[in-house]
Amino acid sequence: MKNFELFGNIEHAQSFLESIKSKKSLFALVLSYTETCEIPGITFAGADKDSMQFTPPADAEYIHYGYCKTITQIPMTPDGKPTPALLTKSALESSSIPHLTINAGSKISPQLPFIETDMPFGKNISFQDAMTDSQVSHAVDFGRIVGRSLASLTDCLIIGESIPGGTTTALAVLRALGFDAQVSSSMPENPMELKNQIIESALKRIDSDHPYSIVAKVGDPMIPFVAGMLSAASGVSNVMLAGGTQMAAVLAFASKIGFNEENTVIGTTSYITNDQNVNFNDLIQKIANVPIISIDPDLKNSQYSGLRAFSEGFAKEGAGAGGTTIASMLKTGNDSKKFLELVEKEYSRLFT
Amino acid sequence: MKNFELFGNIEHAQSFLESIKSKKSLFALVLSYTETCEIPGITFAGADKDSMQFTPPADAEYIHYGYCKTITQIPMTPDGKPTPALLTKSALESSSIPHLTINAGSKISPQLPFIETDMPFGKNISFQDAMTDSQVSHAVDFGRIVGRSLASLTDCLIIGESIPGGTTTALAVLRALGFDAQVSSSMPENPMELKNQIIESALKRIDSDHPYSIVAKVGDPMIPFVAGMLSAASGVSNVMLAGGTQMAAVLAFASKIGFNEENTVIGTTSYITNDQNVNFNDLIQKIANVPIISIDPDLKNSQYSGLRAFSEGFAKEGAGAGGTTIASMLKTGNDSKKFLELVEKEYSRLFT
Repeated sequence: MKNFELFGNIEHAQSFLESIKSKKSLFALVLSYTETCEIPGITFAGADKDSMQFTPPADAEYIHYGYCKTITQIPMTPDGKPTPALLTKSALESSSIPHLTINAGSKISPQLPFIETDMPFGKNISFQDAMTDSQVSHAVDFGRIVGRSLASLTDCLIIGESIPGGTTTALAVLRALGFDAQVSSSMPENPMELKNQIIESALKRIDSDHPYSIVAKVGDPMIPFVAGMLSAASGVSNVMLAGGTQMAAVLAFASKIGFNEENTVIGTTSYITNDQNVNFNDLIQKIANVPIISIDPDLKNSQYSGLRAFSEGFAKEGAGAGGTTIASMLKTGNDSKKFLELVEKEYSRLFT
Repeated sequence: MKNFELFGNIEHAQSFLESIKSKKSLFALVLSYTETCEIPGITFAGADKDSMQFTPPADAEYIHYGYCKTITQIPMTPDGKPTPALLTKSALESSSIPHLTINAGSKISPQLPFIETDMPFGKNISFQDAMTDSQVSHAVDFGRIVGRSLASLTDCLIIGESIPGGTTTALAVLRALGFDAQVSSSMPENPMELKNQIIESALKRIDSDHPYSIVAKVGDPMIPFVAGMLSAASGVSNVMLAGGTQMAAVLAFASKIGFNEENTVIGTTSYITNDQNVNFNDLIQKIANVPIISIDPDLKNSQYSGLRAFSEGFAKEGAGAGGTTIASMLKTGNDSKKFLELVEKEYSRLFT
């Protein structure tokens, strides 16, 4: 059994699943950075404050090589729970879905060939603008170029992200664009009060309702770049935004610059869609007529506590974990049980 | 009539042409740099010594945008003859063949999204080693990664290069690997004596017959990178090396590291294959059992002297001009007459 759940436009979701089953997919991992992640207590996407900057390149290296070059071990929470890229790696490897890495404002470049976009990292939105308007404009333009190129090479472009602290900037953008969103987190005790403080002070700087200005003031580089990719790619091929809250922010911004809803879905994990605190499904439906395909990777039944932790609310999503798992199951015919075996094998290769 | 000429393994060339006709192609333009081009009189691939470094990024920008960002006009010889990228641009645009830009040691990065490989430019081989052995090794490794990725996204990977002065380093590598090659040039009065002096002094530094060491001492970064691409890509898809003498050097080095001859062809212009001073066809057959597909773009019949110049020996090839023209004609069904019309239209857009 494939534990797929569909939300929103079910018919569209079903025809999307059907159409990508026998076709070519390509996974693009977008690396970025916001200094907002350096605020103590905001994220667990890295062992400590200084190591957070290495998480995006290390995710990319791990997915590509099976090990990291920038750091010695794969990215982990302070108490040793692994990056969701572990799901991505298992998904891509079992299905031979090709992947490319894109640097869209990562502080550190990955040690592998990657698509360079000449974008600086985002600043800490708690006390300054993330970017300038012209940097947002550049991100959208280059996102469009990359999206059009990659879409011309595949039938379904799956876009994931790795940006520590990105849920906070995503939430700020969503609120600024008028969506009353609650945010997901890599931590089970979601530090909502801290996030709200940061977002409140960020929102105070907004002095224009122009979407470029909003993203410049309270967003991060990933959001306009991936929105640009979506905008161009969805005109040519199917696009799956693989992620949770951050992809909601991408969708909200993309709605302002234009994209083709008919070719677009969100692909994510059940840890996002079942999170009662967040109401992700309602949020997406308010933003756009885009269905959600959600997968339960059944990690609650794992023999490893490090994997069960995902189902307990740690690192619920990230690095395209949910979306690539969905695409992988469609391509290989694997069910959740078989996929869990692959993930456990990978976990055991890494940690035992 | 498509003015194709086939050399070498004709049967292989014909089946290659047949197989890519209805399939997907992808053009990858590899930008690189060798300080060897700064030797006065060695190349015309740029208006003067200082502007040469801008030719690779400007070629890429022109092919992508239709105009350059790094410089104001498209790359030209000192007396105003345009870059062969003009053919590439016309070919790709008329056929909607997608393209990607790769920076493999360019001195200047192009102002568009590109694949970054973390490679330094090559040094002037007339008095120092071009690279270290470990830089060659890195170039091959990263070339393999990029080649495998791109080959998984297409049926035929067409690889072109833009590296001013690259024919001199190519010739040095060919001679060092035991091939008595004469070299083509962007100039009709090929400065053979000067090139031979440079090559002689470069060859004196060779103290090992290891191919990595040879390329490190007398080559340029493009050669090991594209050889790595070919090595990995030819295992997965068809590969067309689009170029003249420089692709001969790639082929010679690739023969040392291994590649699949059965999936490989050279695609170039008749200005290379008909050059009596060079004997390109014999050279390729000595290196590997790889056929040559050659196209006469009929520029001798152009109303513009700037285009007729190609047929008179200026900028005979480069930026994948011949290979993309072949792929474009196959895909669109255009003959040489129709293609010349497209090229003239583009020339007139740029210059009149």
